[in-house]
Parts: sequence; C-alpha cells; structure tokens
Amino acid sequence: MATAGVAVANGSGGADTTAAFKEIYSKLKVEMLEDPAFEFTDESLQWIDRMVDYNVLGGKCNRGISVIDSYKILKGADVLSKEETFLACTLGWCIEWLQAYFLVLDDIMDNSQTRRGQPCWFRVPQVGLIAVNDGIILRNHISRILQRHFKGKPYYVDLIDLFNEVEFKTASGQLLDLITTHEGEKDLSKYNLTIHRRIVQYKTAYYSFYLPVACALLLAGENLDNFGDVKTILVEMGTYFQVQDDYLDCFGDPEFIGKIGTDIEDYKCSWLVVQALDRADEDQKRILFENYGKSDPACVAKVKDLYKELNLEEVFHEYERESYTKLIADIEAQPNKAVQTVLKSFLHKIYKRDK
Amino acid sequence: MATAGVAVANGSGGADTTAAFKEIYSKLKVEMLEDPAFEFTDESLQWIDRMVDYNVLGGKCNRGISVIDSYKILKGADVLSKEETFLACTLGWCIEWLQAYFLVLDDIMDNSQTRRGQPCWFRVPQVGLIAVNDGIILRNHISRILQRHFKGKPYYVDLIDLFNEVEFKTASGQLLDLITTHEGEKDLSKYNLTIHRRIVQYKTAYYSFYLPVACALLLAGENLDNFGDVKTILVEMGTYFQVQDDYLDCFGDPEFIGKIGTDIEDYKCSWLVVQALDRADEDQKRILFENYGKSDPACVAKVKDLYKELNLEEVFHEYERESYTKLIADIEAQPNKAVQTVLKSFLHKIYKRDK
Repeated sequence: MATAGVAVANGSGGADTTAAFKEIYSKLKVEMLEDPAFEFTDESLQWIDRMVDYNVLGGKCNRGISVIDSYKILKGADVLSKEETFLACTLGWCIEWLQAYFLVLDDIMDNSQTRRGQPCWFRVPQVGLIAVNDGIILRNHISRILQRHFKGKPYYVDLIDLFNEVEFKTASGQLLDLITTHEGEKDLSKYNLTIHRRIVQYKTAYYSFYLPVACALLLAGENLDNFGDVKTILVEMGTYFQVQDDYLDCFGDPEFIGKIGTDIEDYKCSWLVVQALDRADEDQKRILFENYGKSDPACVAKVKDLYKELNLEEVFHEYERESYTKLIADIEAQPNKAVQTVLKSFLHKIYKRDK
Repeated sequence: MATAGVAVANGSGGADTTAAFKEIYSKLKVEMLEDPAFEFTDESLQWIDRMVDYNVLGGKCNRGISVIDSYKILKGADVLSKEETFLACTLGWCIEWLQAYFLVLDDIMDNSQTRRGQPCWFRVPQVGLIAVNDGIILRNHISRILQRHFKGKPYYVDLIDLFNEVEFKTASGQLLDLITTHEGEKDLSKYNLTIHRRIVQYKTAYYSFYLPVACALLLAGENLDNFGDVKTILVEMGTYFQVQDDYLDCFGDPEFIGKIGTDIEDYKCSWLVVQALDRADEDQKRILFENYGKSDPACVAKVKDLYKELNLEEVFHEYERESYTKLIADIEAQPNKAVQTVLKSFLHKIYKRDK
C-alpha cells in the first residue's frame, strides 16, 4: 500500500504530466481541422474549432491523465520517450473526447442547464439540436485520431475494438438508465439494487475506470484477454466511485463538493433510494412513493429524514469498508506487481473522498 | 451499355436476392439481442427489438441489396456460396443500419413528422429524446456486427476504416447543411453551387453510392487504394442522383413520386434555388429573397414561376445529359470490365428516373 501511495504521489496529475498532456491537445485539434477527408468551409472550420474547445476542455482530465500515469507504472519508467508520451497522451485525449461526446448528448436527453460551469452546448445560441450532430462528430474524431496515429501498430485493431466495446456498454447502460428513470410515469417499484448496479457499471465504470487502464495495457504491448480480472476489479471500483457520488449528492458538504445535490428532486435511481427501498417497511415505502422526485423542499426533507431514520449514512460507511477490503484483497491476488500498483493508485485516488 | 443493362436486369433486386437479404436480418437482430457485452433486462431487450425493427426496416433496401448485386458482378458469378451470400448480405445490412442511424438523428434535428409512412421514431410516445441514444446504439450495432462476422478476415481493418471514414464524411456534410440552412436568420446569399455540391457529396453520395461498392470490393479481396477513380465516379453519380431528387421535388408528379415536395417552403439548399440564384438578375433575386422559405402558397407559386421563367427544367435536362455522357466516358475509361458493369448498373438504375 505504501508503495502504491508513493507511486501515485509521484505519478498522478504531476505538473509535468499535466503540462505534457495539455500541450498535445492543440496538435490533435489542428489535425481534426486539417483532416483531408472533408473539404471544410471557413464557417464549418470555425464551428468545429469552437465546438471542440467548448466540450472537450474544461474538465479535470482525470481519465485522460490516468492513461499516462498507468502506462508509466506498467513500464516501470519515471520518464517516457517523446514518442511514448505522445501516444499515451493521445489515447488519454481520445477518452476525453469520448467523455465530451457522451456529455453533449446526455445533456440534450436530460434537458440539463449547465455543465462544467457553463451552459450546456445545446443551450448555446445558434447551436440547439445541431449539438446532436456535434456529438457524432466528436465520436468520429476518435476514429480519425486512432487511424492517424495508431494504424499500422500491432494493437490498432484491439484499440478500435476496445473503444467500440466500451462505447456500446456505455450506450446500453444509458438506455437502461433512460427507460428505468424516465419512461412513462414515475414508478419507484422499478428501482432496486440489481438495476442500480447494472446502470452504474455499464454507464460509468467501463469508460471511466476500465478504459484508461486498458489503453495503457495495449500501449505496453499486453493482450487484454489476459486481464479479465483487472477489468472486473476496475469495474467494481467504478461502481464504488458512483455509489460515493450518490452518497455525497445527499450527505456531502455542498460548499466542498461545489454543487447542491438534486438527485431526490430529479427522481434519480440513486444508491440511496434503492437502499431505502430495500430496508423500508410498508409505511416508509409509502413516504418514498409520495415524496421522491418532487421539487417541493418539504418532500425532499421527508425523504432525507427517512434516509437518516434508516441509518443510510452508516449503511454507506459499512459498504465503503467492505468494498475497500474486497478490492485490496482482489488487487493483491494479482500476479503482476506493476498491475497491482496501477490498481492501487486508482483506489487511493477515490477511497474516502469527500468531494 | 447493353451488357450492363442485362446484368442489372438479372442481378438487381431479383426476388431471390431480396429474399436472401431479408432472411439474414432476423439473424443479425437476434445476435444484437443476445450480445454478451451487455446484460439486458427484459425491458431493454424489448426496447431494442422494437427500435431496430421500427428504424432499420421499412425502406427499399436499395443500398443494402446493391452490395450483393455488385459483389456478384465483381466475382463474375450468378450464384454465390452460402457463406459468401451471408457475408455480402451482412455488409448490406450494416449499410441499412447506418442509414437508420442517420435518419433517426436527422429527423430529430430537422424536427420532422414522418418517415417511411410512419411517425418519426422520436415522435413515438415514450421515446422522445431517448431516440438520440437509440441512434447511437444503431451505430454501435454496426461495429458489433463487423466484429462478430469479420474479425480475423484480412480486410477487417479496412472495413472498419471504411465505415468510419464514410460516417465522418456524412456527419461533416450534415454539419455543413445544418449551419448553411438553419443557422440564425434565413440568408439565401449563403447558397451557391459550390456549397450545394459539397453538402450533397458528403452528406449523401459517399454512404449511398460509394459505400455499397466499396464493401463489395473489400469482400472480393480488392485494395480500395487502387479504386480512387471508382470512388470519384460513384460520388459524382450520387451527386447527380440528389440533383434529380431536388428537381423532382418541384417538377415531379406528386402522385407518381409518392409525396408532395416542400423544399421551397422548407428553405432547402436545393439545386434549383442555387441555379436560380446563379441566373437571376437583381429583380429576380429580390423575388427569391422575398418568397423563398415561406409556407404561404402564393410565395411558393412565385418561386415556381421564377424557376419556369429561368427555364430551369431545360437547365436540368441539359445537366442530366452532360452528367450522363461524362459518367459513361469515365466508366468506360476504367480498365476493369467487371467494375465497369457494376458502375453502369448503378447509373442505369438512376438515369432519367421519374420517381
């Protein structure tokens, strides 16, 4: 554990890594604007330039930067060659582009207002539903980037298959979320632990946790078929991360996490509500059915009171302890020490986070 | 020309080919519903099943079936083996899936009402903007199908790159259309022959005309790099096809083409309006600026009168003759006789069509 901790302290989001990562962005964007596969007009060039900046930038780039961190650990190298750095950063940016694509389209489907402190892209004047096509273009940029920089590498096909598989899982998880949460009238009886787990796993965990490590493994020349356990562990970690997110939405300090949670008002299939449903007696269930998903603060307060009555804070802490213990055991059962270090670095970034 | 005509008569949309093609659909759909990359719930299974039927079926399948027709000609075989038939049909369905994906999303962006004689998918009750994610899933199905049936073939990478490149061109053409046609206030001065050509070429011609032949060439073991001229010819043919479409929207017989054209009302960047703008004097331009894009029948009539005054019917017939002559010459300059036959079969399907 200490080693992993140190490795993280050295490697993760270090100023050098972050600077190298950011530098690559402009190069990749310019390549997209000079892509010979389309004859751009001035107007379409300006559109793409602005659209990519607006949607790909502005996040914390955790997913992208973790490709480089993981790759360094796997190679056992503190310093990478210029070529290696470029390829690792490029794959990191592909994940950031993927995230941008999901967010642009999710915001349209959820009718959201803001994202990363600015209006959602589709709410920008003159954009509107052109944002649907912009989302598609962001996804296409990934294929263009992979083709330009990885075609001819022995792992090119694996890289394409990886992005395709992860995208398919994410879109399928998103469908499950959409039809469970939004379809027809609000119906809490659809919410349970199994469905919550499945949504989280597919919609978030694969692309946020598995994808960066899988990219680093491919770069390091590994065959992903040999890393089934690593996939399971990372998806488990991603699930744990999302449960934390659900918990903090209600019990976190709004000043500290930087936003006021609205999962109860928004009728979200949150870990808290599925735990409450699992533990509630008939009277408590009635309270949930009558008050969940309403914006009236009195209704929200009744739900929060019930969460406290059911002791969900302690249920969460117990879940957190158990998850951690299980994850550490699974990680230490891994034969490859470098892989252990990669996995621990991810775990220690998220364990007991309070924002 | 006679030979090609016969080849078309024998090969194109023959009852056997069509039956074989339709049969493969159910198999491919079932594979999508049994994809081990996602744990479906009953509800999500039913959703996908219905969504795929609703959007992939119901068209004429010209693009899909032309993969089989072209492949037969390239192989010089009247009958294909079971395996060859399956692979050609599968690629044909991938193009139909691609078309479905574009149409689902285009209808959302254009706020359309009907498609193939039924309400657009996003207008179906309980669907709404979930249709955005459904479009994504349709696109993902193509990658899943290609991976399942073509991974390991020597042309697998080329197939993926082909679909990616064509999708990128189509989405870029769609962007050009959207920002030229819809952005901000209506501004006819943006419309000209260059922009019309570029929109049509990228948005329609690559996926409708080049893609089916490129699929057949890859199946036949060819390297697409050697068929640059074929690409150019097919894109030219696709452009000609769309110009016909624009012409028929105004001058075709509504009973015969099965719909009442509304390009004038919809402010479309039609070949007719760009030709009119190119030929109009100042007074005539004023008529266009004042009346184009208005649903008032009196305004539409003024635009149509101007089209007649500018003799656009004859301009079109002249364009049609010239295109045909140029295309035949380019086709006959092709060294490969089978390729000539494929190209002529496409040309004769569309030349002088009246619906």
